Amino acid sequence: MPVTSLSGFPELLPGERIVEQSVLDSLRRTFELHGFASIETRAAEPMDQLLRKGEIDKEVYVLRRLQAEEDGDDAGLGLHFDLTVPFARYVLDNAGQLEFPFRRYQIQKVWRGERPQEGRYREFTQVDIDVVARDTLAFHHDVEIARVMGEALSALDFLPPLRFQVNNRKLIEGFYRGLGAPDAAGVMRTIDKIDKIPPAAIRTMLVEDAGLSPDQADQCVALAGIRTTDTSFVEQVRALGVEHDLLEVGLTELAQVVDGCRDLADGRVRVEADLRIARGLDYYTGTVFETRLDGWDSLGSICSGGRYDSLVTDARATYPGVGISLGLTRLLVPLLARTGLSASRSVPSAVLVALVDEPSRPSSNAVAQALRARGVAAEVAPAAQKYGRQIRVAERRGIPFVWFPPSEPGRPHEVKDIRSGEQVEADPAEWLPPELDRAPRVVAAGDEVEGDT
Amino acid sequence: MPVTSLSGFPELLPGERIVEQSVLDSLRRTFELHGFASIETRAAEPMDQLLRKGEIDKEVYVLRRLQAEEDGDDAGLGLHFDLTVPFARYVLDNAGQLEFPFRRYQIQKVWRGERPQEGRYREFTQVDIDVVARDTLAFHHDVEIARVMGEALSALDFLPPLRFQVNNRKLIEGFYRGLGAPDAAGVMRTIDKIDKIPPAAIRTMLVEDAGLSPDQADQCVALAGIRTTDTSFVEQVRALGVEHDLLEVGLTELAQVVDGCRDLADGRVRVEADLRIARGLDYYTGTVFETRLDGWDSLGSICSGGRYDSLVTDARATYPGVGISLGLTRLLVPLLARTGLSASRSVPSAVLVALVDEPSRPSSNAVAQALRARGVAAEVAPAAQKYGRQIRVAERRGIPFVWFPPSEPGRPHEVKDIRSGEQVEADPAEWLPPELDRAPRVVAAGDEVEGDT
Repeated sequence: MPVTSLSGFPELLPGERIVEQSVLDSLRRTFELHGFASIETRAAEPMDQLLRKGEIDKEVYVLRRLQAEEDGDDAGLGLHFDLTVPFARYVLDNAGQLEFPFRRYQIQKVWRGERPQEGRYREFTQVDIDVVARDTLAFHHDVEIARVMGEALSALDFLPPLRFQVNNRKLIEGFYRGLGAPDAAGVMRTIDKIDKIPPAAIRTMLVEDAGLSPDQADQCVALAGIRTTDTSFVEQVRALGVEHDLLEVGLTELAQVVDGCRDLADGRVRVEADLRIARGLDYYTGTVFETRLDGWDSLGSICSGGRYDSLVTDARATYPGVGISLGLTRLLVPLLARTGLSASRSVPSAVLVALVDEPSRPSSNAVAQALRARGVAAEVAPAAQKYGRQIRVAERRGIPFVWFPPSEPGRPHEVKDIRSGEQVEADPAEWLPPELDRAPRVVAAGDEVEGDT
Repeated sequence: MPVTSLSGFPELLPGERIVEQSVLDSLRRTFELHGFASIETRAAEPMDQLLRKGEIDKEVYVLRRLQAEEDGDDAGLGLHFDLTVPFARYVLDNAGQLEFPFRRYQIQKVWRGERPQEGRYREFTQVDIDVVARDTLAFHHDVEIARVMGEALSALDFLPPLRFQVNNRKLIEGFYRGLGAPDAAGVMRTIDKIDKIPPAAIRTMLVEDAGLSPDQADQCVALAGIRTTDTSFVEQVRALGVEHDLLEVGLTELAQVVDGCRDLADGRVRVEADLRIARGLDYYTGTVFETRLDGWDSLGSICSGGRYDSLVTDARATYPGVGISLGLTRLLVPLLARTGLSASRSVPSAVLVALVDEPSRPSSNAVAQALRARGVAAEVAPAAQKYGRQIRVAERRGIPFVWFPPSEPGRPHEVKDIRSGEQVEADPAEWLPPELDRAPRVVAAGDEVEGDT
């Protein structure tokens, strides 16, 4: 990682950026294959929009024009802290010009004025997919969102194995209500802390803060302990003996998501019903998602979301949606810093074209241009130094091939693989590097992980 | 264009965003073929960095954490207003880990707290390429930068013809000095206004403000009037009878750029030596670039830059550079709004897979998945409506093909081109759409331009 002169604002070196670009290209490819359209929203939103959800007000960066005292025409703008609130606003602004159900992906920087700490950044890239409809959104889109993000994560073959954890707010709220909990939301807020607080303390909080009896508290903790990779969670929940209509709806919905994602599991991505997942945010109304990397529990959930039936509303209509958001920076920066994840080279160039001498630069330019015309990235040596020094220019950048134009008329061109030392005659109008060397590749070396699980 | 609820912060509809993505993909491809590596810098820089260049202080957006009164740990941050100042800082921060000469491209949003007006935005995307070296940067990189951006613009085949205008600060400063101008910088600042102010007024300003004699002023205006598409400007300048060593260097350098770009001119991109181009920014020391679209003069220069020999310095070294910056938003938003420029469809999907009925959704999903496995973007109909209504779903999004899975076992799959109405039997494991329909295309319809030239 480069020198970070501003804490919480990570920047990547060129080779690291190639890894990030490769990840973004892969994500985009998956999303587009599933028909998701890209949008971007402005970075700034009115503060009253940003603060509407309440929970995050400490973390917003407020904007002020340096010389704006006198006019104040853009007072009250802040930088967006996620992509869900701006997307909701975009849908309302443009509802008349969008086709519903509307599938979109959105990859942008977001900003939070947090105190920087492990895994927390003040500027970071979020990758969101959502499907939003007008009035009603069929449940199969919950399955679709899970599948698309699951597939997108599966395609990132350098990732450690990960658990894609699914739950359903109706299931847990129905369970708490069926149990007779006086404050189902309070129970949910407490259970949401179950990863950070020991079960005994959770039980005490459920009794003292959420008004449950000790038996009820035990039932809630038991529910949160259920975790299955198939639909057997349904029987385990039923065995707890709680009944409620909303619980039944939740069980059915969750079973559909787990069933619908079964063929995704490829060893790297394990889809699980995990009944402790609650998500803090108020706007979720059904399916909820979290995602954890094996061996990287300290990162928390790197990919979260859920169903929101009433987040997006105006005077005329409601736009229910379901979505999931990948915290790309939170995922990638630790992997770059602590594993061997890197790019096979720090520049796009597959070939460095050497210079016979400075006056023949146009000839070397012509070779490079012939290569580029067939999609081979090429650069010309910066100076007509001795060939050994020109080869060093390629080596330092990881460029695999050096091209030698003829030093006198009639002689052939030659190209050298500087890794093997092999040098062969070649025609600039025909030669191609091996497919694997065409573009920089992501290299996942020895997976040195935390070992904290 | 969508409803813009915040003036100066343009947002694109999904179809318009597809055009923007296509442009960005094309630019990236050209830059990478030439060995330029991508970097991104953080959006926020310390205010003292941002204000170092002085000229732009009115336009900076200052950041403040909403709840930061008490700590003030990130007081003094502002949003970057261009990508050159942050790039200079990035080079200094990471000099030890970069390979020089360092070629980079950078595509990011920038922010300026300007009063919104035609062609001015508060948030917009800049596309920059630069080459920076340590201590010395060979002049051939000036030619390289011009060629790469020229090629990148040439590849955008929906653009109106454009003039890529090159000049050289050494040429004009040497001319003013050879003429005996007491304040060469003052002359340059006045000549920089020549597009906005009539020549007679320029002449008066040169005499009254820059201290020239009427004859000297005439010479300066004559110099600014020289514009050639080849190196004949050299003789035209010499004919003015002014002599100075710096003028000679500038003439040689400018001739090299014009000569080096000669084979770029393809009808759409005309490279010209234009001796009125001065660029307001203080840090340019040699080559300067501007770019104007035929018929869109009111947009001003959409792509500008130049050579800066001493912008990037620290206690140990100087990092001379040359670069050019394309104002993508300033270019694209007016073209989208005022010409027929659009995407052939508003979603990535080439195929909508119809539903026989809701229970057969898994079969339709399997068809879509088989298509995606061969790179064909596909979505499944949102609901099992009558086929006519499912076809309408595709029509409204511009999706060219609708796929009909068999309604009973043993029957074949069929696919319909909804533009021609042609419907044929097809195998989901083999069928491919025509190449032209694989991805959304950029469509440049009737070029309704301003006609202001």
